[in-house]
Amino acid sequence: MKIYFAAAIRGGREDRQLYQKLISFLKMNKHQQVLTEHIGSSQLISTRESKLSDKEIRDRDIDLLTQADLVIAETSQPSLGVGYELAQAEQQAKPVIILHRPGKSTLSAMINGTDYFKDKVHQYETLEDAKRVLNSELELVAKQIKNASEEK
Amino acid sequence: MKIYFAAAIRGGREDRQLYQKLISFLKMNKHQQVLTEHIGSSQLISTRESKLSDKEIRDRDIDLLTQADLVIAETSQPSLGVGYELAQAEQQAKPVIILHRPGKSTLSAMINGTDYFKDKVHQYETLEDAKRVLNSELELVAKQIKNASEEK
Repeated sequence: MKIYFAAAIRGGREDRQLYQKLISFLKMNKHQQVLTEHIGSSQLISTRESKLSDKEIRDRDIDLLTQADLVIAETSQPSLGVGYELAQAEQQAKPVIILHRPGKSTLSAMINGTDYFKDKVHQYETLEDAKRVLNSELELVAKQIKNASEEK
Repeated sequence: MKIYFAAAIRGGREDRQLYQKLISFLKMNKHQQVLTEHIGSSQLISTRESKLSDKEIRDRDIDLLTQADLVIAETSQPSLGVGYELAQAEQQAKPVIILHRPGKSTLSAMINGTDYFKDKVHQYETLEDAKRVLNSELELVAKQIKNASEEK
């Protein structure tokens, strides 16, 4: 299962270590591949990141999102990019898991109020909570993907 | 001309007074109507705002965006909702003006690198700069709308 992990970059890097831990957890299962591992990197900062142009970054990321079987977004740090990516995921009818810490911020009504994201938003506080949510949701998504491929 | 003005709400209200000034400026022209005047209101805070459910807020706002002739987004304060709204504006092929203060944050590569937003992103610092950008861009958009309606 190819996973597009989305989280804030220029929106703010306060939660970078949490992203890193979530990505490491996802990678522990050898059937899961994280296409956007760099999201957890300490090299990625909230100002311009690299030698890539913004167009190159955007086109690479939309390409990865299109290849992905599943989008997982950590939304506690407000981010224009994550909002845009969630709209793309909805448009492409991708499976989505949204992880949000209410202790950090209130999730945008534009996301929380969208029918497509209903039952996909999971409030959590600790890393252990997040892992439990991911375990049960990933199992559901894997089943959906399996059923969809069998129907073809 | 009906304008959908988009800016951060739950993402943070630090720039609320700036939004208010931009909205007042837009309303000075009697041919312009701002559909989302509440964005500048001191009543709108970054936690849950009102008696409306998130679904009611989201459906109202997407409805207003769909009615609008033009979307103007102030993107200096990172916001999931504004990212989502910009993706919707792109999907609906709406005219867009993006105002961004580089002194406050670096604009998301997902927005700055999207072809649809090319030539639509305007970096500024002072309110006077923003007004100048709006005056010239609004004139262009008004012409485009006029031409499009004449072609029909």
